[in-house]
Amino acid sequence: MKPFAAPLDDIFFILNHVVGADRVADYDPEMSREIAQHFASFAEEVIAPTDEIGDRIGAKLVDGRVVLPDAVKAMFTQYVEGGWPGLMLPEDYGGMGVDGVTGGVIHEILMGANHAFQMLVSLAVGHNRVFQNFGTDAQKAKYLPLLASGDYLGTMALTEPGAGSDLGRIRTRAVQDGDVWRITGEKIFISGGDQDMSKGVLHMVLARTGEMDSGVKGLSLFACLSDRADGSRNAVNVTRIEEKMGLHLQPTCQLAFDGAEAELIGAVGQGLRAMFEIMNHARVDVALQGVAHSARAYDIASSYAAERVQGRGPDGPVTIDKHGDVRRMLDEIDAIAMGARAMTHLALVTLESGDNPWLLELLTHVIKWYASEQGLRAAETGMQVLGGYGYLQEYRIEQTYRDLRIAAIYEGASGIHAMGVAARLLRLENGAAMNAFVDYLKGIDGGPALDRAVAAWEAARAHLETGVDPGQIATPFIRLTARVLELALWAQMAAKADHHPDPERIRRVAALVARQSARTEADLAEMTAA
Amino acid sequence: MKPFAAPLDDIFFILNHVVGADRVADYDPEMSREIAQHFASFAEEVIAPTDEIGDRIGAKLVDGRVVLPDAVKAMFTQYVEGGWPGLMLPEDYGGMGVDGVTGGVIHEILMGANHAFQMLVSLAVGHNRVFQNFGTDAQKAKYLPLLASGDYLGTMALTEPGAGSDLGRIRTRAVQDGDVWRITGEKIFISGGDQDMSKGVLHMVLARTGEMDSGVKGLSLFACLSDRADGSRNAVNVTRIEEKMGLHLQPTCQLAFDGAEAELIGAVGQGLRAMFEIMNHARVDVALQGVAHSARAYDIASSYAAERVQGRGPDGPVTIDKHGDVRRMLDEIDAIAMGARAMTHLALVTLESGDNPWLLELLTHVIKWYASEQGLRAAETGMQVLGGYGYLQEYRIEQTYRDLRIAAIYEGASGIHAMGVAARLLRLENGAAMNAFVDYLKGIDGGPALDRAVAAWEAARAHLETGVDPGQIATPFIRLTARVLELALWAQMAAKADHHPDPERIRRVAALVARQSARTEADLAEMTAA
Repeated sequence: MKPFAAPLDDIFFILNHVVGADRVADYDPEMSREIAQHFASFAEEVIAPTDEIGDRIGAKLVDGRVVLPDAVKAMFTQYVEGGWPGLMLPEDYGGMGVDGVTGGVIHEILMGANHAFQMLVSLAVGHNRVFQNFGTDAQKAKYLPLLASGDYLGTMALTEPGAGSDLGRIRTRAVQDGDVWRITGEKIFISGGDQDMSKGVLHMVLARTGEMDSGVKGLSLFACLSDRADGSRNAVNVTRIEEKMGLHLQPTCQLAFDGAEAELIGAVGQGLRAMFEIMNHARVDVALQGVAHSARAYDIASSYAAERVQGRGPDGPVTIDKHGDVRRMLDEIDAIAMGARAMTHLALVTLESGDNPWLLELLTHVIKWYASEQGLRAAETGMQVLGGYGYLQEYRIEQTYRDLRIAAIYEGASGIHAMGVAARLLRLENGAAMNAFVDYLKGIDGGPALDRAVAAWEAARAHLETGVDPGQIATPFIRLTARVLELALWAQMAAKADHHPDPERIRRVAALVARQSARTEADLAEMTAA
Repeated sequence: MKPFAAPLDDIFFILNHVVGADRVADYDPEMSREIAQHFASFAEEVIAPTDEIGDRIGAKLVDGRVVLPDAVKAMFTQYVEGGWPGLMLPEDYGGMGVDGVTGGVIHEILMGANHAFQMLVSLAVGHNRVFQNFGTDAQKAKYLPLLASGDYLGTMALTEPGAGSDLGRIRTRAVQDGDVWRITGEKIFISGGDQDMSKGVLHMVLARTGEMDSGVKGLSLFACLSDRADGSRNAVNVTRIEEKMGLHLQPTCQLAFDGAEAELIGAVGQGLRAMFEIMNHARVDVALQGVAHSARAYDIASSYAAERVQGRGPDGPVTIDKHGDVRRMLDEIDAIAMGARAMTHLALVTLESGDNPWLLELLTHVIKWYASEQGLRAAETGMQVLGGYGYLQEYRIEQTYRDLRIAAIYEGASGIHAMGVAARLLRLENGAAMNAFVDYLKGIDGGPALDRAVAAWEAARAHLETGVDPGQIATPFIRLTARVLELALWAQMAAKADHHPDPERIRRVAALVARQSARTEADLAEMTAA
C-alpha cells in the first residue's frame, strides 16, 4: 500500500500560478505553505494510518451510543493537542484565524488522509459562518470556544425521511417553551450525529416554527447541544446508524429529537437563508473531496505503475507505465485531479476575494458536479491501473471510490446542480452568472480548441434560452460547461508549466485534455438534436 | 429492497427479434423460454435471497479451508437437486444438453440473482469445452460426470504473482512421475479455489512443462482434483483468501501446489491453445455479468423512482420518475442494459451458429469492454437515482457496482481488449475481422446517425492503418467501435419495437442513443488530433 502523501507542489502551483490566490487579501503564500507543510506531516504520519482502521472497523452503535475505534480516538486526541480544531476559527474565541484559502488547502489534505474523519471534525467551520452571520455576541461567546477547543464537534441536521432534496417537506417542529425552544421530530442521514471522541456534539437543526404547510418559509435554525448545562443528556437519541458503501468510520445517524432543548439562531423563518449562506462553502468542501480522492488515486496508481513489471519493450521487461494505454489512464486521472483542483481553487479564491459573486454562483454548481462525478472516474481508473490488485482492499484504492461515491449525492445531488445552472442561473438577473462565465473564458488564451468549445457552450446556452424544457438536457449542459472550464484551466496550467517541478507532465496532460475537446460539440449535439 | 426479477421479456425480445437466434440450429424459442421461466422462478425464490447473505458474511478461511455461509450451502443443495449443475453438459455424461443460447440466458439470470454464486458453479461449462476439444474419452468419462452432478465445481488456475496479463511468465512447474504429473508452484486470484459446498474441486491448471524461459510455448494444461482416488487430500492448499471490494461470497484464493497429482489434458506445450479455445465463451460470460448488473440496476432504480415522491408537478406532488433528469438517468441505464444485452446476444448467437467467425473475433473484445465498462456506469447511475438511499447497503444497488467492478479487469483487462482490436485485429488476415464488422454495419438501416458514426469509425480505422502507435488511442477506438455497434443495435431494436411489450420505452431509449451519436466523432477527433 502506498502511504498517503499530501500533493503540496501541485496545490501551490495552482494557487500561486494558475488561479491567482494573491487576489485574496489575507492570503500569504509563504505562510500558507508553511502551515500546510506542518499539517501535511501530521496528516501523513498520524491521521492517514487510521484511514484503513476506520474503514475496516467502522463506527458501531452500542447501547444507543456511537463507538469509534480506539486508534481513531487516540489520533483525535493528538489532533486536539495540535490545536487543529480551531485552525479556521476566530482568534477571539480560541481559534487560530487562518485564512480561507489556506483552510481549503488543509481541508483537502485532511480529506486525502481520512475523508470520514474530515467529515467528523470539519463542520465547525460552517457553524462558525452561521454564528458570524446570524448569531448574537452571546451566542458566539457560548458556542465558538466549544468548537475551537475540539470539545464539541458539529452536525447539520436537515434531512428527514420525506425531505431530501425538497426541504419544504420538513416536519420536525420547534416550539417555544419559556427561555428555550423544544425540538421534536426525526432526522436522518446526520453525519457524525453521535460519537465517543469529543465531549459533545453541537447539532445545527432546521425545524419548522410555522404551520405544517408553510414550506421553506416556516423553517428556522437552532443550535442544540447534546448535553444540558447541568451535564445531563439532552433529549436527542441515536435510533440507528446506516450501513453504507463507504465512509464506515463516519456514523450516519438517524436522530430522534424528543422535546430537545435548543436555541434559535437568527430570526424565526430565516432558517433556510442561514443554510444557504454556508452552502457555497459546503459545496467547495465537497468539490475538494473529489480533488483529494482523485489526487490519492493518481498517487497510488502512478506509484504502482512505476514499479510493476509486465510485458517487454525493446530493451527487455518494462514497468507498466511504459505501456501506452496505462500511460493514457494515468494521464486521464491526472487530468481530473489537477483539473478539478484548478477549478475548485478558482472557486475558493473567487469566494474568499468576493470579487466576482456571479462567477462564483456558477462555479459552485460546476465544481461540485465535476469534482464528484469525474472524481469517481479517477478512482475507478486508478483501480483499473492496478488490475486485480485494484479490486483488493489491501491496496486501498477501492476505498477511494467507496468513500467518494456519496460526494455526487450529498450537498445537492448532481442533477440538482445541473438544473441549478440550466434553469435557475440561465434566467437569474438576466443571466448575470452566465455572462460572468463567458467574460471569464474570453480572458483566457486557450487556442482554437478553447475557442471552439466556448462557441459550443454559447450555442448551447442560446438553445436553452429559446425556452426548451431543460429537464433532460441539463446534465449534458453542465457537462459541457465543466468541459469548457477544464479546457480553460488546463490551457492556463500549460502556459505556466515552467513554475511546476515537472513541466513536461503538465504539458502532456494539457495536450490530452485538448485532444478531447470535441466532446463539447457532442454535448451540444445531444442537447439540440431533434 | 426490490427483489430480483429476471427480465425475460427483454431477453427474448432481443434473441428472437433483434439478433436472429433462429440462426442457431439447436435453439428452440419456445423450449428456451420454458427452461428460462423454470430457472427464473428458482433464481428469484431460492438463489437471489442468498445474495445479500453472501455479501455480508462472505467466505472465510478457517483452519486452511474455505467456509461458506450455511444459507448458501442449503441453497446449493437445492440447486443440485434441481439438476442445474448439468444443464449445459452432455446428456451422455449425466447432463441435460441444453443449447448454448439458452445456456447464456440461464447464466445471465444466475448472475443477476447472485454473481458470486454464479462464478462458483459455472466453470463446469468451460471445463466441458476443454474436455470436448482436448480430452480423451477416458478423461471425459472420468471428469464430466463429477461436474454434471455438482459433486465437483471447477476452477481455472492461471494467474501467478508475476504473471497476470503476461502468462509467458508462469513459473509453476509440472513434472512427470510415472503415471501421473506432479505440479509445484503458487497460483493467485483463483476464484472458488476451495469451499465446503461441493464434495470437491476440479482445478484446471496451466503449468510449465518446458524450460523456464520457454514462454507460452512451454505451458501445458492439467486437470487436478482436490482429492485423490483413495479419498485423501491432494497436495493443493489454500494459503490465503483475498479481501475484495465485492463478491465476498466468492473465495479468491491463493493456492500452493506442492507436488499435487494431476493429469495432462491435450498435448504437452498446448496449454495456452486449450485456454484460448474457451476464451471467447468466457468473455461472453463476463459480458453477460455486465448485462445482468445493468438490468438489475435498472430494475431497482426504476422501481424506486416510480414510488418515491419528491417535488411538485402541475397536479401536485410527483414521483421522481417524472423529473426530466431522473427520466434521463433511467433511460441511460436502460440504454446500457439493453444495448449491452443486444451486442452480447449478437456475439453469443454468432458464436453458437459459427456463421461469422471474424465478426465474432471483434465482437468478443467489444462486448467484454462495453458491458463491463458501461455496466459500471449503469450501476453508478442507478445509485444516483436513489440519492442517499443508493449509498446504503440496504437497497442492494451499491452491491451491483462492487460485484461488477472486477468484470472490467478479469478475463483480460479493458486495455488488453482495446489493444486486441486496435493492434491485433487491425492487421490479422488483412483486417478480416474489421471488414466483417463493416459488412455487418452496412447491412443495417440506422439512418443518418448511424451513417455518420460508421463514417467516423472508418476514418479512425484508416488512421490506425497509417501505422501510428496504437497505445494511447486504442481505448478511444474501442469506445468508438462499441458506440457504433450500440447505435446499430438500438436502431434495430427501434425497428422491432412493436414486438416488445413496451414499444414506447424502446423507441424513447433508442432516440436518446441516437442523440448521443456525435460522441463517435469526438472519439475520432481524440484519435486524430495532433
